Amino acid sequence: MLLVRRLLGDVLRATRLRQGRTLREVSASARVSLGYLSEVERGQKEASSELLSSICSALDVPLSEVLHEVADQLQVEETLAAIELTAPAEPARGPLHVTNVAA
Amino acid sequence: MLLVRRLLGDVLRATRLRQGRTLREVSASARVSLGYLSEVERGQKEASSELLSSICSALDVPLSEVLHEVADQLQVEETLAAIELTAPAEPARGPLHVTNVAA
Repeated sequence: MLLVRRLLGDVLRATRLRQGRTLREVSASARVSLGYLSEVERGQKEASSELLSSICSALDVPLSEVLHEVADQLQVEETLAAIELTAPAEPARGPLHVTNVAA
Repeated sequence: MLLVRRLLGDVLRATRLRQGRTLREVSASARVSLGYLSEVERGQKEASSELLSSICSALDVPLSEVLHEVADQLQVEETLAAIELTAPAEPARGPLHVTNVAA
């Protein structure tokens, strides 16, 4: 299943790393614990709307921009998943005939 | 504060109403309780990534489309908020001179 929190975490971490900032700096600025921010970035914890706003403010990036990026990535994954579902299966192979060369 | 869960709830409810479906139908199809879906639609509860996926599947709408719509609306609200912050204050008025016409 495509999880929004995983994509959201990826986008938040990529944004922070582009700015060359540490988890410690951003968590202090956003007034969230370092452990919480780390879990959000790894897609292990859902960020509440309030904390998501705080994190985006701390990163000085509009929340709408982060959500657009998440939606764009999700759209790519949804498209890939749809292609996989509609792609023809591997060509059927007949039973494997093993020739015993030692016989 | 602009809350993602409020905008998300608005988009989910609008999508359901466009389809002419009831809370009961969609909640049963998404396997979430009617009360939970109702709270999510009213922006009172955060939807977990898993339940958001289920609700979008039940509405037969890609999650990326819902997120794009939320991000678009958020962007409009962010822009309006920025305009309000930068707009010049009301023109300063001098002290009010009252002429006593009865004098």
